[in-house]
Amino acid sequence: MKAPSSFLPSILPSLSQTSATDAAARQATLTKPAGSLGRLEQLAITLAAQQGRDKPAVDRVHIALFAGDHGVCEEGISAFPQTVTGQMIANFAAGGAAISVLARQLDATLEIIDTGTVSARHPQAIDARIAAGTANLARTDAMTAAERDQALMAGEAAAERAAAAGAELFIGGEMGIGNTTSAAALACALLGAPARQLTGPGTGLDAAGVAHKTHIVAQALQRHADTHAQLAQDPLTIMASLGGFEIVALSGAMLGCAARRIPVLVDGFIVSVAALAAVHCQPALRPWLHFAHRSGEPGHAHVLDALEAEPLLDLGMRLGEGSGAAVAVPLLRAACALHNGMASFADAGVSSAGT
Amino acid sequence: MKAPSSFLPSILPSLSQTSATDAAARQATLTKPAGSLGRLEQLAITLAAQQGRDKPAVDRVHIALFAGDHGVCEEGISAFPQTVTGQMIANFAAGGAAISVLARQLDATLEIIDTGTVSARHPQAIDARIAAGTANLARTDAMTAAERDQALMAGEAAAERAAAAGAELFIGGEMGIGNTTSAAALACALLGAPARQLTGPGTGLDAAGVAHKTHIVAQALQRHADTHAQLAQDPLTIMASLGGFEIVALSGAMLGCAARRIPVLVDGFIVSVAALAAVHCQPALRPWLHFAHRSGEPGHAHVLDALEAEPLLDLGMRLGEGSGAAVAVPLLRAACALHNGMASFADAGVSSAGT
Repeated sequence: MKAPSSFLPSILPSLSQTSATDAAARQATLTKPAGSLGRLEQLAITLAAQQGRDKPAVDRVHIALFAGDHGVCEEGISAFPQTVTGQMIANFAAGGAAISVLARQLDATLEIIDTGTVSARHPQAIDARIAAGTANLARTDAMTAAERDQALMAGEAAAERAAAAGAELFIGGEMGIGNTTSAAALACALLGAPARQLTGPGTGLDAAGVAHKTHIVAQALQRHADTHAQLAQDPLTIMASLGGFEIVALSGAMLGCAARRIPVLVDGFIVSVAALAAVHCQPALRPWLHFAHRSGEPGHAHVLDALEAEPLLDLGMRLGEGSGAAVAVPLLRAACALHNGMASFADAGVSSAGT
Repeated sequence: MKAPSSFLPSILPSLSQTSATDAAARQATLTKPAGSLGRLEQLAITLAAQQGRDKPAVDRVHIALFAGDHGVCEEGISAFPQTVTGQMIANFAAGGAAISVLARQLDATLEIIDTGTVSARHPQAIDARIAAGTANLARTDAMTAAERDQALMAGEAAAERAAAAGAELFIGGEMGIGNTTSAAALACALLGAPARQLTGPGTGLDAAGVAHKTHIVAQALQRHADTHAQLAQDPLTIMASLGGFEIVALSGAMLGCAARRIPVLVDGFIVSVAALAAVHCQPALRPWLHFAHRSGEPGHAHVLDALEAEPLLDLGMRLGEGSGAAVAVPLLRAACALHNGMASFADAGVSSAGT
């Protein structure tokens, strides 16, 4: 594992042990049998430790939706045409997409960042366009090192905006036709896993489609190994070779959030792969991450295992956009409300166990 | 299986197939790959079919919290003293309990119904007091047939209040020291299962405590079989023999909600046992039930299997009060918001798969 580029945070803050201790002590006084709120108890304690206060909150949620196109689409690995990325940006902006609906419901900020698509830039998208999509990762590096650094910086800039807005929770979303192919290739290279283990139907390929996609991912992995020799396991090299602009930007955003003490709620397969890449750059990122849901995309389980992550939800969602994370936000809010708002045994005059 | 008492709804309405068909057709037009919202899609369709409209909503949530005491506490089956039931009623009323916090967060109505406790009635609790707790079900029938019918009617009255308030979703909660013992006995009798399969730690017994509790449940089941002979499998007989006032009231409330076309979100172990008893009375109740969460109480899994229920959440919660159901409400709200608020492919000008 190599050190990340100099512009990435070289040291990430630790969680506050004091806040964790205080929050755990508070949990023990609340009018409920110990442990009876299950994972909501530890969730509140972890959020307290991340936010450095004994009463955590996730009222202000910042959703950064990174869009990018993928040259590998020319291999026919998606059920949707590549122009859908740009069409969906317009749908996000118009408020008709799943994440638009959920962001309104959560009263969350939703920003759309165009990291490089084949379509014209939408006026409501933040301009972080690196190129008109990546190169075809099955045949050449998806991007140059300079382009990768641009993508990382696009994520870092989103973290900076989240911090400026006082965000108490960050959600990264993604949109990019073909990006489960890139994510599968990235995860395989990071984990040393074969293509078949991480390649799935994405937006809805049939068995023949999955077989072809697996073949393309395997081809990309072979090319990567042949091209990069002794750097083939270096996470930054892997990101440039097999990444998508929006996926690399997500890695940068998560590192940037941790540097600013903003907890991150990780969405599904693609964002988890971005998290995996970022954790390979900086293992100290891991304590800043919550995992929202177990995606219907089969490769997600392997990525979650590698991150020792147990997501909060398992609803068979596989849409992307940050939608699974958005659906999980109320669980974090419930954990905070219970932690902050419940009476103690003493205050309520309730006898505790064994008394 | 015998017919329920004459005052229970003898015929329950069916779900609206027209609304289900319309809602499924709408789902297919929304700007997402088919099936990519996972269980949220079917959730919206089922709610539409229950509510008889193609755009369902669960904005108005009615939480009815039934409290009751249990004579079986004299066998030493709980970690908490029986007076805690009354103390917790005061805590619910004062707003300090978990369900109080969650109800506020959801902007839900919360009513507390005292079905019979050893404590004085709290002024903010609805008076449905049947007796100062049930009789000790390990040694005699927990209640008479007349008391059981009173408890069922207390539930029916809550359903009527929910309907009058325009509730779009009903949650039943429970509070009663000792009620996991009653629930375990009820479930064993309904399912023909041995005591050890459904008896667990409840609010926090250790292994020796669970062993003793299992022994008491087995004793109750033997007494029930000896006393009731050929009626030992009749659900109404089981309810009177082994029930708690608050548990039987929950069964009545669920039947009353289905009669009024109000969907029910079932909480954890105890409410699921009340649902099981009610479904044994009236199998047509089952389509009106959503299951919120898989409780940390080990017996819950068997009850869920018997009801062919796959809960939405699995967070290790085991508090009761309706708290697990309350935590799951935002998932239903998200399902409705997505169903009602997302743009169609045609409206958004987005190309669908394969085009």
